[in-house]
Amino acid sequence: MGSRKPGVRDRILGAASQLFYRRGIRCVGVDAIATEAGSNKMSLYRHFRSKEQLVAEYLRSRIREAWEHWDATIVPLQGNPRRQFEALFAAHLAKDKACRGCALANVAIEIADGDHLLLALVREFKVEMRERLRKIAHELGARDPSALGDALMLLMDGSDFTSLVFRCNTGPTTSLMFAANALIDSQLSAQQRIVHRERSRRRWK
Amino acid sequence: MGSRKPGVRDRILGAASQLFYRRGIRCVGVDAIATEAGSNKMSLYRHFRSKEQLVAEYLRSRIREAWEHWDATIVPLQGNPRRQFEALFAAHLAKDKACRGCALANVAIEIADGDHLLLALVREFKVEMRERLRKIAHELGARDPSALGDALMLLMDGSDFTSLVFRCNTGPTTSLMFAANALIDSQLSAQQRIVHRERSRRRWK
Repeated sequence: MGSRKPGVRDRILGAASQLFYRRGIRCVGVDAIATEAGSNKMSLYRHFRSKEQLVAEYLRSRIREAWEHWDATIVPLQGNPRRQFEALFAAHLAKDKACRGCALANVAIEIADGDHLLLALVREFKVEMRERLRKIAHELGARDPSALGDALMLLMDGSDFTSLVFRCNTGPTTSLMFAANALIDSQLSAQQRIVHRERSRRRWK
Repeated sequence: MGSRKPGVRDRILGAASQLFYRRGIRCVGVDAIATEAGSNKMSLYRHFRSKEQLVAEYLRSRIREAWEHWDATIVPLQGNPRRQFEALFAAHLAKDKACRGCALANVAIEIADGDHLLLALVREFKVEMRERLRKIAHELGARDPSALGDALMLLMDGSDFTSLVFRCNTGPTTSLMFAANALIDSQLSAQQRIVHRERSRRRWK
């Protein structure tokens, strides 16, 4: 295990990540990845047991990044769930500007029934996202936090989807924030709405 | 042009459709399609100029089916836009039971930047879906029909997406109807809500 080993591993993972995101996980072969990384197949298999393991590593790094980004977005707004939702949706809109949708969701479509490892990774990510959204909905005091969390997740995922066709947030995603706010409002009493809006405004300043 | 020609063409398109839906458009080659159809490559290229044309034909037939299904769902409910929305969402839930999401949306993810023909077909479909939803929202008397149409489209697309991970409507899609109704209600006055609900109930009987 020489000192340059981590460098090669990172280079392979970096090249694989770019190719997987641009062209999908299915059609990109290990040869193309090794070439792109300025390495070779033998070296690739020394660092990753199989292509499946390499895809799994790619997914894990994207998942790590996603939660880091998520936490950086909501932690400063602790105690203000409405603002947390608004910030998550704003971050989602900013992300979609890359115009290729969500890397993890795109992979989900390519996953066949036999890909247990990959499907498990994506599912785990989506299950956690669902729980996190429901938790914020609970803190908000929503009448039905589970339903609200799910509804907001449908909006986020829908936005990823439509951004593949209506690039750069030009499609239905233009109404993402409107829809999120309408759903949130529908789950609050008139009194709660005023309180949350007041608190939200104060935080903005 | 013998009398059996249409049979071969249909067989090739049928085999291609199944393979494309199951395994994606990118990785299924013309050889596999010809074999599956009990035909050969030469015959395939006699009926379809290129693989791209075959994928385009697949998309066109799915789009035709989608609008036939759509019209069959809403035409009997003409004059009752709320029920039309509810029926569309109910049909959407029924469709998702196939558990592989929306064929057209799945293709969107595989479409690369250079695939002008395929991207144009999917975009045209999605543009029309957007217009159709906005039109119903307008007939409903929604305060902002464009925003409501878009929001409902995000829900539908999100449901397609999450159904890939949470198979057979077990995920956030369980809240699809709740979310659609909440968004619709948020766009109506109290008076409109009562009128639409009354009309909706009458039609059900």
